[in-house]
Amino acid sequence: MTSVLTVKMSNKTFIIEFEALGKRIVCEEGQTLLQCAQGAGIQILSVCGGMGLCGSCKVRVLKGPASELTSSESEHFTLPEIQRGWRLACQLKPKGSLTVYVPLESLAHNYRLQIEGLEREVELNPNVKTFEIELSPPLLEDPRADTDRIEEGLRNKGFKCKGFDVEALRDMPLKLRESSWKVKALLRDGELIGILPREEAVLGLAVDLGTTKIALYLVDLESGRTIQAVGLSNPQILYGEDIITRIQKAIKSEENAQLLQKSIIDSINEEIITLLNKLNFSRDQLVEGVFVGNTAMHHLFLGLPVTYLASAPFVPVISQALEVKARDLGLKFSKGAYLRFFPNIAGFVGGDHVAALLATGAWTEKGPVLLLDIGTNTEISLIREGKIFTVSTPSGPAFEGGHIKHGMRAASGAIERIKLSDNGVWIKTIDDVPPIGICGSGLIDAVAELFRIGLLDENGRFKGRHPRLRENEGVKEFVLVDEREMKNDQAITITQKDVRELQLAKASIRAGIQKLLKEMDLEEDALEKVYIAGAFGSYIDVGNAIYIGMLPALSREKFIQVGNAAGVGAKIALLSKNKQEEADLIAKTCHYIELAASKDFQRLLLEASFLGKYKISDEGRRYVNGDQDQ
Amino acid sequence: MTSVLTVKMSNKTFIIEFEALGKRIVCEEGQTLLQCAQGAGIQILSVCGGMGLCGSCKVRVLKGPASELTSSESEHFTLPEIQRGWRLACQLKPKGSLTVYVPLESLAHNYRLQIEGLEREVELNPNVKTFEIELSPPLLEDPRADTDRIEEGLRNKGFKCKGFDVEALRDMPLKLRESSWKVKALLRDGELIGILPREEAVLGLAVDLGTTKIALYLVDLESGRTIQAVGLSNPQILYGEDIITRIQKAIKSEENAQLLQKSIIDSINEEIITLLNKLNFSRDQLVEGVFVGNTAMHHLFLGLPVTYLASAPFVPVISQALEVKARDLGLKFSKGAYLRFFPNIAGFVGGDHVAALLATGAWTEKGPVLLLDIGTNTEISLIREGKIFTVSTPSGPAFEGGHIKHGMRAASGAIERIKLSDNGVWIKTIDDVPPIGICGSGLIDAVAELFRIGLLDENGRFKGRHPRLRENEGVKEFVLVDEREMKNDQAITITQKDVRELQLAKASIRAGIQKLLKEMDLEEDALEKVYIAGAFGSYIDVGNAIYIGMLPALSREKFIQVGNAAGVGAKIALLSKNKQEEADLIAKTCHYIELAASKDFQRLLLEASFLGKYKISDEGRRYVNGDQDQ
Ligand code: FES
Ligand code: FES
Repeated sequence: MTSVLTVKMSNKTFIIEFEALGKRIVCEEGQTLLQCAQGAGIQILSVCGGMGLCGSCKVRVLKGPASELTSSESEHFTLPEIQRGWRLACQLKPKGSLTVYVPLESLAHNYRLQIEGLEREVELNPNVKTFEIELSPPLLEDPRADTDRIEEGLRNKGFKCKGFDVEALRDMPLKLRESSWKVKALLRDGELIGILPREEAVLGLAVDLGTTKIALYLVDLESGRTIQAVGLSNPQILYGEDIITRIQKAIKSEENAQLLQKSIIDSINEEIITLLNKLNFSRDQLVEGVFVGNTAMHHLFLGLPVTYLASAPFVPVISQALEVKARDLGLKFSKGAYLRFFPNIAGFVGGDHVAALLATGAWTEKGPVLLLDIGTNTEISLIREGKIFTVSTPSGPAFEGGHIKHGMRAASGAIERIKLSDNGVWIKTIDDVPPIGICGSGLIDAVAELFRIGLLDENGRFKGRHPRLRENEGVKEFVLVDEREMKNDQAITITQKDVRELQLAKASIRAGIQKLLKEMDLEEDALEKVYIAGAFGSYIDVGNAIYIGMLPALSREKFIQVGNAAGVGAKIALLSKNKQEEADLIAKTCHYIELAASKDFQRLLLEASFLGKYKISDEGRRYVNGDQDQ
Repeated sequence: MTSVLTVKMSNKTFIIEFEALGKRIVCEEGQTLLQCAQGAGIQILSVCGGMGLCGSCKVRVLKGPASELTSSESEHFTLPEIQRGWRLACQLKPKGSLTVYVPLESLAHNYRLQIEGLEREVELNPNVKTFEIELSPPLLEDPRADTDRIEEGLRNKGFKCKGFDVEALRDMPLKLRESSWKVKALLRDGELIGILPREEAVLGLAVDLGTTKIALYLVDLESGRTIQAVGLSNPQILYGEDIITRIQKAIKSEENAQLLQKSIIDSINEEIITLLNKLNFSRDQLVEGVFVGNTAMHHLFLGLPVTYLASAPFVPVISQALEVKARDLGLKFSKGAYLRFFPNIAGFVGGDHVAALLATGAWTEKGPVLLLDIGTNTEISLIREGKIFTVSTPSGPAFEGGHIKHGMRAASGAIERIKLSDNGVWIKTIDDVPPIGICGSGLIDAVAELFRIGLLDENGRFKGRHPRLRENEGVKEFVLVDEREMKNDQAITITQKDVRELQLAKASIRAGIQKLLKEMDLEEDALEKVYIAGAFGSYIDVGNAIYIGMLPALSREKFIQVGNAAGVGAKIALLSKNKQEEADLIAKTCHYIELAASKDFQRLLLEASFLGKYKISDEGRRYVNGDQDQ
């Protein structure tokens, strides 16, 4: 085995299961949890380098024996925390197999934004099947072709070879002879796409093509194990922060479109090569890929024209799942590798949403169940007894800091949590560094808190007095961080206009939800679960989102934040043909409702723009108190 | 229709059927037969430019009404010839639909070497199916993807679309809109590989990759009509006349192998572009290809390693039929086009032989039937009741002029026919230009005639006297063309060594035949037919080939010279999936016998080296007189 997870067999080894991440790794006796997690690509933060000083590596042991508490751990945790199993990963040494929970804040930054997800058990049935075969070498009395021998080897295993990939044939003769005619044959739907020496692992890559971030999962196709997960920035950001700008660029010239395509393919290629080199794998071992992304990303990636995505009626080139040879896109997989692209539902609902539906299993539930993926466009599906209604609602850039005076993306220094009191402010920034601006989750917190302490009315208008509420050039604003506290002498504030932007954004999501409920003739209370997928959705304070009327006023337990469900969907489809078929079925089942063509959407938008915990019916809003459920 | 064969409908038109060529063309009233034949790509010679002077355009009218004999025709033909229907194509104007026979010598040179073949009726069932569909354009209420509309259109025709080619998808949206949603959809095994405006023809290309010549047939896949046939030199000749030299070059370096591959692909691309431009077709219309060739050509063309073809046990990389996207080889077909390569039988018996078996239908006959394809290697199959035994025998370069003192390829100026009398010589050269050397068919004639007039004994030794038999530096030689008749003062002679070379070559063919008969436990007399395929085989005088013991002493009528049967096989496979399956079955059925591993082949070679009409049995040679049959 060339896998990174191989361990010397002289030491005792334990299995560590990371619950929320859905990962299992092997740990040697004597290693700290931090060492073995980082070795396996789980990027637990360690600001102090594992000295037990910073506390950034905190985890919670749910099950299994570990070394005793060190003094630095005793210092970092309160007694109740210790009783609930909180530890520092850099101090703890497993004494047996463990189940561990890593909180979001203990995950390194890029990891944190991308790759946590809800993992489910999948029966292994990848597109590429591996057969260990041993062939007889040619003789003058047996001068059959190499492929005849392979065909015979497969026939002996009960399998039929229906075709051969020409690229795979080119280095096959040498490989057969170098491996003394003992090889792994790789068959994909009956096509021989490659052979490997028997000792080499067979790998696949699942890719979630996000507008801002790309998540990659390198997976062992024979064991189903995730070997490594990495996140990288989408390099297309250089050509436009939002997808609409990029679409417009691509339409303007064929050259632009090719540039956009090339940038992302180059980036992924670079990452593949780095990954394979680091883990001591060869390119020949990477034999299959599954890609998910929104429809525009999908089209730009594949070099399909986006002209008809750009204006009404927003028609995709293709909705069905698409299989492409990796070489046709210039991707550095094995020569014979195929990539499978998830089906799209509509111009603004792509394969990433299908993947999220697949990963959460939401669509198999009796329901009614909601699944939201919040972004510049928010995709929402309402599932009930095998029916799926889907909308895409233009929530706009506010959640990503766009059109907000001091808005920014969820990056280091962004204010992500806010609590207000009658005269004070408590803020938390990402990475706990000095504040630079405010990100989407901070904005939701801010508006919720302002509403809670009575500084905003239900229309979203500032009212009353507060030491930090002021007027600036005729516009009211609330000061989160004072000029004097900032190096650049610029205060960080929430302006009246910012509140309006957030109202528009959150109203579009809420109105989308209400529209779906109306289409299925359901009341909000009927909802059994609300899955919130995507990086942004994982960071919002659901209570506050309810409190500003962005989400329906349901009991908190009904909301499940599932992280990068799209990435997980890609991964399970990589492992299972059945799951691919399921994804195709999901896409076909989704009944897309075009909000632009809907008359009552405007009315719902208006209702949903109010702040407060309320339910919406044909009679209008009905306010609700407390964390209730009925 | 953009086809070249379109005619203005104002004039009357007639159908001209060219019997041996298996072509039908349309002729306008008032055109000469020469004009309309040349317009349709049938390259009838016209040395005097159609003035009725040279006689090079002679044809024979088998059926149908034509203009009256002109005076120049009366001069060119004898009365019996006129009675048998001989005419000059430049003088004759069809007065109705005709059936015409064009003798070999009336065909322009490159045409003549390549493309005549035995054509058979094929039921049209190409890989690429064409569906005329009309789709509804997108609306806000119907924003389905383009592919959904196509899928629906196909479903309405009762067909299911199972996949899409990514390259075909790239220009599909624009094409759909430019054609107002009325298009031809091209489906290949359920995969959408392209769409075309409804008025455009759907084309395929059949290619016979010969070691020296490449034959291309452009075919209309909807009608089955051959639109144009062209021959070109194999540019790999620059890297080595014979295939062994090329293999050795390719083994020496990867760069060489790529050069060899590139040269032939460039050449074919050039020819495709020329052809399409000339006929006013677009590249998008060329949607399928079928390629046949010997195993080495096949491997070099596909970029497969030839290392293991070069030495015993001569193992091909692949024997099965192979399908490849044209773009994977850089061939300028439509973006989604596939190429199908015929299956190989063994290292020295390739898809061209399979194609010849397919084209002649030899393999479906009860038999016993022989099929020979004579070349540097001669492939021979013996068929009997569904069984096929096949050998490849190393006949060497003599038939192509190699190792012969004044030998040359069958090109302009080569002596191709020879008659001797007790004191004189009659020769005929290709193109009737002054002689330069002697080609394979001339060599066979020479040896047969020398044996007939008693100047060679059955051992192939010169004996007796003749004004033209002389000794030159101790070696006996027969003077075909005297020094004084040659511009370069070099006589053209047949030397004792030349006779020996021919004996080796022809013995290897005869021994191969005998070996096959022995394996099937048959006598020569049992043979019902002997098909002789290939360019060279079409030019030899079968009577003389029998007379020197190269072919078994059977009745002349049993021999059928079928021309480029391999090319015709490629063409019928292009038109019919069933024929492709038949070809695969042929390849699987062929039982290859390795002569290198055969003990009695040496003895047979010795027997077969003698001159004369004889049969060979375990008891040895038995001479036969006259043109007999038993
Ligand atoms: S890494 Fe700093 S406390 Fe563990
Ligand atoms: S072309 Fe010369 S005679 Fe017809």
